[in-house]
This record gives sequence, structure tokens and C-alpha cells, in this order.
Amino acid sequence: MTSNLQLYNTLLRKKENFVPLSAPHVGMYVCGPTVYGDPHLGHARPAITFDLLLRYLTYLGYKVRYVRNITDVGHLENDADAGEDKIAKKARLEQLEPMEVAQRYTSSYHSAMQQLNVLPPSIEPRASGHIIEQIALVQKILQHGFAYEVDGSVYFDVEAYNKKHTYGKLSGRVLDDLMANTRSLDGQDDKRNPFDFALWKKASPEHIMRWESPWSVGFPGWHLECSAMSTRYLGETFDIHGGGLDLMFPHHECEIAQSVAACGHDAARIWMHNNMITINGQKMGKSLGNFITLEELFTGSHRLLAQAYSPMTIRFFILQAHYRSTLDFSNEALQAAEKGLQRLLAAKKTLARLKPSDKSTLEVPRFIADCRAALDDDLNTAMALVAVMEWVKNINLVKAGAETLTADDIEQLSKDFALITSDILGIKDDSQADENKKDLSADLITLLLNLRLQAKASKDFATSDKIRNDLAVMGVTVKDTKDGFEWSMA
Amino acid sequence: MTSNLQLYNTLLRKKENFVPLSAPHVGMYVCGPTVYGDPHLGHARPAITFDLLLRYLTYLGYKVRYVRNITDVGHLENDADAGEDKIAKKARLEQLEPMEVAQRYTSSYHSAMQQLNVLPPSIEPRASGHIIEQIALVQKILQHGFAYEVDGSVYFDVEAYNKKHTYGKLSGRVLDDLMANTRSLDGQDDKRNPFDFALWKKASPEHIMRWESPWSVGFPGWHLECSAMSTRYLGETFDIHGGGLDLMFPHHECEIAQSVAACGHDAARIWMHNNMITINGQKMGKSLGNFITLEELFTGSHRLLAQAYSPMTIRFFILQAHYRSTLDFSNEALQAAEKGLQRLLAAKKTLARLKPSDKSTLEVPRFIADCRAALDDDLNTAMALVAVMEWVKNINLVKAGAETLTADDIEQLSKDFALITSDILGIKDDSQADENKKDLSADLITLLLNLRLQAKASKDFATSDKIRNDLAVMGVTVKDTKDGFEWSMA
Repeated sequence: MTSNLQLYNTLLRKKENFVPLSAPHVGMYVCGPTVYGDPHLGHARPAITFDLLLRYLTYLGYKVRYVRNITDVGHLENDADAGEDKIAKKARLEQLEPMEVAQRYTSSYHSAMQQLNVLPPSIEPRASGHIIEQIALVQKILQHGFAYEVDGSVYFDVEAYNKKHTYGKLSGRVLDDLMANTRSLDGQDDKRNPFDFALWKKASPEHIMRWESPWSVGFPGWHLECSAMSTRYLGETFDIHGGGLDLMFPHHECEIAQSVAACGHDAARIWMHNNMITINGQKMGKSLGNFITLEELFTGSHRLLAQAYSPMTIRFFILQAHYRSTLDFSNEALQAAEKGLQRLLAAKKTLARLKPSDKSTLEVPRFIADCRAALDDDLNTAMALVAVMEWVKNINLVKAGAETLTADDIEQLSKDFALITSDILGIKDDSQADENKKDLSADLITLLLNLRLQAKASKDFATSDKIRNDLAVMGVTVKDTKDGFEWSMA
Repeated sequence: MTSNLQLYNTLLRKKENFVPLSAPHVGMYVCGPTVYGDPHLGHARPAITFDLLLRYLTYLGYKVRYVRNITDVGHLENDADAGEDKIAKKARLEQLEPMEVAQRYTSSYHSAMQQLNVLPPSIEPRASGHIIEQIALVQKILQHGFAYEVDGSVYFDVEAYNKKHTYGKLSGRVLDDLMANTRSLDGQDDKRNPFDFALWKKASPEHIMRWESPWSVGFPGWHLECSAMSTRYLGETFDIHGGGLDLMFPHHECEIAQSVAACGHDAARIWMHNNMITINGQKMGKSLGNFITLEELFTGSHRLLAQAYSPMTIRFFILQAHYRSTLDFSNEALQAAEKGLQRLLAAKKTLARLKPSDKSTLEVPRFIADCRAALDDDLNTAMALVAVMEWVKNINLVKAGAETLTADDIEQLSKDFALITSDILGIKDDSQADENKKDLSADLITLLLNLRLQAKASKDFATSDKIRNDLAVMGVTVKDTKDGFEWSMA
């Protein structure tokens, strides 16, 4: 089985022909979410990038085992092994059992992924469900002399590892530079070197998530789970490991070190990283006030958003860029994507109603050839969408009579168009059949709430209360604000 | 915090007042699915029964931690510890990794539950993710002398247990009778007694799902996971344990024995069991050809089905019976439920448009009082739906002018009706997603036009004209009539 697919391997810094270990099977591992908050823009890009890869590989005839994990323990606030566990902290703040927090945000992640038309992975292992495998991995690394125990915690010995292997080969970082530039943080004094990383952490008395181990009652280090679970479900060597570029260092670098230390060789053959997103040119961050959840995007309820953007607009927007380019979110860019998506969806309907001619003035096989060439070139969805939009134009030209297609060609183009846009790019029509009605309700509610303001101004509180109560019965919650009102629907 | 809720405790064979261990918190554990096949009718009833309990407890002001597990390992074909692991067998047949099977059917279970409007549990632990807790539990039971090891497997010693405690107290079975009536099965020769059950099984060479343990590389017995996971997330003693009546023996009986053997006391204080379903009077079974999946029900694609039945029809049908009654599925009964559901949903719309009168001829507070009395009586949804349908009739009588309600009473009834039918019984209109939006618009227009009538009555013609004109801009044409108004949409 052969294909022309080339993928960029971060490890080699170049594109290479994709040849799986044992075709037609492909093993693919992608880092999933740490489930301590609502899914946001930063979750959408890797999910859509590797969903596209899954869909394209499947189209090419491969049988993909796609493993995407759920991090529900071990991810500390500070990547340098300090601070609280992210999920335990959220649980403390919300007075919940950590697993309730994990469950809630796993559900909201799944719901957002479904709306983005991201297919579920074949296996979705949880870190907390693989403590045994993680302990076994730590034991192996200890046995091989690449880790040390201090007071119940086990750390990876980067210096010892680097004497035999190369720490930094994925990210290109050089250990000497790291040593010169890393300073010791509070609470990490039991590490021999500040760039060593935790494989197992002894739990402090207040730490809720804890398991027995040969070293202490504690919990696994964050990097460990991906090495343990990828091996468990894909074997010691597998084809593709993916994730966001922010995970390349230290997370993926540490994964490689763990695998090599335990098994003597790399686990993943191809490392793929999607590039970062920015918002109006800035990095996204809670402290910057530009942290936008997917729910906020879908409903337009964030002050930076001029309107709501449908999940398909987001998907289309993300696919408009090549996954290795940075991608800047702005209202202008999203509105342009929305227009493009609408043109595409309209062309699909037009295509279904084209009148055939006796001869074709357009070369239909070019459509799928161009799309495949683009996708074969390291999943260049930007170029693939250029080809799609060119044919959107062509379809409109045929409708206008400026070009013609035979009945056979129309049928072929319909099939190819559905294949490329629906099956591979995963773009579906998610505009409510009744978009107008949604708008109408919004307009009616606004009219009612303006009448209510008027009633309040003339001290007719019976009427203003009636409007609020009747809306409440219909599931519309009204909130009075300084400027007037806000409303939301259940 | 007090309530009048009474629940039937299988353990005591009677109803008792519900008093949680530490109100307002309630801990509830319900046996979830073994994920090796598509969800079927047998999954719908316990899910809906305990969803109702969750919703009602929440309405009463309790804070429920609801744990429902996923059995993804250890459930053998034969409850007597023989045969293959159900998931591993399916994986072998479909040539998948067992966890791929578990993932696929967990997803289809979740999807079916969402369609049935069953709320997700607070925590959904997987058996395979709690091997450590299960091994620790086996160790405790061994230490206390209620288990023995044979060739890498560990069995619960029912006879030893029964000398100090009572095996059979939940199901009412007597050990002597069991001893007389149980014959030894092939492959179970290492058990001292045929009714002993496996806590840990040594894995045969071809068994894929396996973990290291003090006794062998193997896997936990099926009954063990629920004891381990309920303790992990709800503590050694908790309020409610639920499940289907088919699980009472041996599964729940063995759970009790495990808890008592390990901790010296029962774990769950109240055991609740929903009764079984039959299909056209017969037990459901694959060999009988009457095994109907939920997907088949929703699409009507099973030869026994005369039509498709919507998820809400199924929910309504299940709620029409008390959970401790048997429930027979037939086309006639489902069609009757469908008609009842449609009458209920139509009455909801009628209620939103009732014209108020000066006085009420009906006693609105009776509605919620009757519903609560029914639900307080061991969740008697059959009686609660009788009350609902009586008020469906009342609403239609008001519409016809045979009874009257004041504006306040209409508002109160609207709130109560939504509370009982939507929030507590979980019945929503799933006929069309956009149908809801259309209804919302209609409700909003009616509210606006009533405000317009009021404005006209108080000679505020500026407001009444504004409403008519703004509606006209939105495409809504208003016609004044003798009784009030009519409207139509462009």
C-alpha cells in the first residue's frame, strides 16, 4: 500500500514520505486536554488538525488507531513540577471531588468537539486510570540508571541521560544552555538539577489524588502518562505523535527521554506539532483578558467578539491556515471565514441543482487531484481550500451559464465535492435550518426588553415584572445591567 | 433539612423515610453498562429510573454525588466466573484492542443517554482505571480470612463468610439451598465451592487485558469493581446503591459480602432495584430474536417494531410505570405512550396561550401537591403522570372555556408544569429542534400582543403602535379582532 503523503517531522525538521510501520495499520497518539476548565480556542486547533489527519489517513485506506488521552491528574500549575495539581486546585476552589471536576470538563470538552465535528478517538485513556503502567515505567527508568529517588519522589536524571543519549533533540535545545539559564524554584530543592523532571511526586498531606507506590503515597508526573499510555495502546514503537507546539518543550522532549530511558529507543517515529494561535496579534492568556472559551465563541458572549461564530466557522477558519503556520483570531478574519463557509455551503446546494449540458468546459478530475496534492503536501488545508473555493466559483459559473458540465461530470463533481468537504475536511452545514427564526426570537426578546425598560421608567412595575416572569417561563433569563439589560437562553 | 420522600429498600423489603447520612449531601452509586455492545432497552430503564431519582433529590434541595461506572473489564460471559471476558471476546471477534471496543460502546451509550435526556453522572469511573483499588480490596478480604488463593486466582470464601455474617441477605437466598442446587461447572475446579466467586482471576495466555498483582498477572472479578469504586468516590458508607433487579443476585449480593468482609459493615444503606422489562410478554434475549437496541427503537429498524419511537416516547413510556413494576414493551403500548406524550406537549403550548379570567375554577396548587405526593411515595411516576394528564385535560378545558384561571394561576401553573414535566420528569420536546424555536417566537409574539392590548386599554397608543410597527418590520402581521388579535408571519 502506497500513498504520496508527506508529513513534516519535527524531529528531522523536514517533510518525509509517510510510510507506516505495518501498513495498513497506523498508530497515532495525540495529547488531549487537562480537564480543569472549559475548552477554549487552544483546544480547537490541535483537535481539528489531527482530526483532519485521521480523516485523510482513513480516506487513503489506512486503519488508524487514534489514541487521545484525558489528563485528569498530575498536571501541576507550573510545568517545572511546582504548584498545585491543576484539577485538585479547581476541585478545592469549587468544593468538589477532583474526579467530579474531571468529569464535568471532560463532558464539556466532548460536547465542544462534537460541535466542531471532530471525530472521537479510538481510545481515550485517562491518566488516573493508568497508574500501574506509570509506576512500572518509573521502575524501568530507575533500573536503567536514569532516575533517582529523593524523599519519596522520583526524578528523571537529565544529566545522566544526556551522557548516553541526546536530551533536546526534538526541541533543539542544548543541555548546557539550559543549565546556564535555568534557576532553581522554591520547593524543588530535592532535585539534583533544576531541569530534572518529576516521574513520581510524594503527595503532600492535603493532596487528594494519591496512590501507593514503591516510593511513597503520591501521584505520577505529568510527562509520564503519555509515555505509559501510548506504549500501552500502540506498542513500544508507533507511527505518529501529535500535539500543540507549546507541548514540544518540555512535555514531548521529556516523553522522548522517558521512552529512550525505559526501552532504549524512541517511541514515536514522526512528531507533528500544530502552531500556536494568537488573538488580535496577542498570545491568549487569562491575565490578558483575551482568554476565549469555545462556548463563548459559539454564542458571541465575550467582550472581544463582535458576534457569535458557529462551530463550522471556527473549523473552516482553522483549516484556512496550514497547521504549521501561526493563526490569528480577529473578528475581521472570522467574519471573512464565515462568508467563505456560506459561499461553500451555498455552492453545495447549487451543485445539486445544476442543469447538465452536452459537453463540459471544465476539467472535473482536476478538483480532486488538486485537493489531494495539497493534502499530500503535509496536510496543506490552506491550498486545499483554495482549490475548493476555485470550484465554488466554477459551480456558480456553470449555474450562470458561463461554463458547462455534462450530467456525468456533475455527478462526479458532486461526489468529489462531498468527499473533500464533508468526509475529509469535516465541514458540514450547522446553520440551524431556522436561522431566521433564531434571529426573530432575538429581535422579539429585544423588543420586549425595551418595552420593559420603558415600563420601568414610567414606574409600571407590574408590567416590567410580568415581562421578566413570562420570559423566565419561556427559558429566557433577563439580567438588569447599568446600561439596560442582558439576556440568555436556557 | 427534611422531606417526605420514602424509598423502598430492597434490603428491608419495605419503604422507609429517606434520611441521608449527612444532608444535604447524598451519595448514590448505580451500576452502569458493560460496554461490549450497543445500548438496548435493558439499559434505558435503570438509567431513566435513577436519573429521575437524581432529578427529584436535586429538586428537594439535596446535593447528589452520583457515581455510575463503566464496566470495561472483568465481566465474564458466565456469571459463575467461567467463559471469556465479554469485552475481550468482542475485541477478538472484531479484531480490535479491547479498549477500542470499550470506547466505541461507551460513546454509543452516552449518545443514547443524551437522547433519552438522562443527565450525566457526577463521576463515571471505569473498572480498568481502578485496578489498584481493587487489588487493595482483595488484600483486605484475604487478611480478614474471607478469601483464598488457588494457583494465582483469589476466590471469595462464601462459607467462611456465612459463618460470621449473612450471605444472601439482599436477595433472600439461603446458602444451604444454594449449596444443594449449584452444580460445578467446567473450568471452575479450583474453587472450594461452586458458589464462591472470583475476586482476582489469573489470566490465561490468550487473555489480553491483564495487570500484575501479588497473586498473578490477571484481572479483577466483576463484582469487585463496584465495591472498590463506590468506596473510592463515596466513602465506606453511603446512601443509595441502585441497579436493575437482574443484578441483585449474584452481583449486588457479592458486593455486600465484599464490603462486609473488607470493612466489617455494609457500604450502601439503601438498595434500590428497578424491575425488568419484557417484550410482547417475553424476556428479552439475543437467542429469542427480540433483542432491541435503542438505536433500533429510535429508527424503527427491527422487525418487531411497527414504527420508530422517539427517545422521549421511550422515556414517557418507562415513566408511565412505577419502577418496581415489570414493564412490557409492545407496539400498542408504545403507540399509546406516543399519543400521551403528544397530548402533554400540546397542552404545554396551549398553556402558554391561555386567556386569563377574573377568577379560577380550578385549584392550581393541587397540581404540584399531587405530583410531589406521588414522587414522595417511592418515586411513583405512574401516579405523577396521572396527575400530569389530569391537568392536561384541565388546560384543554380552560382553553375551551369550560373552566377558568386567573392570570396569576396561569403563571403559577406554567411554572409548576415546566418544573414537573421538564426538570423532574425530564420530558422535553424532541420532535424538532427548530420546532422549539418556532414555539418560542409564537410565545414571544403572544406576550407582545397582550402587552399591546394592555397599552391600548390604557390609551397608550404610542406603545401599541410601536409594537405593531416593529412586528411588521420583523415580518409579523397583526390583525385586530373583536376578542383581541390574530397574527401571521410572512
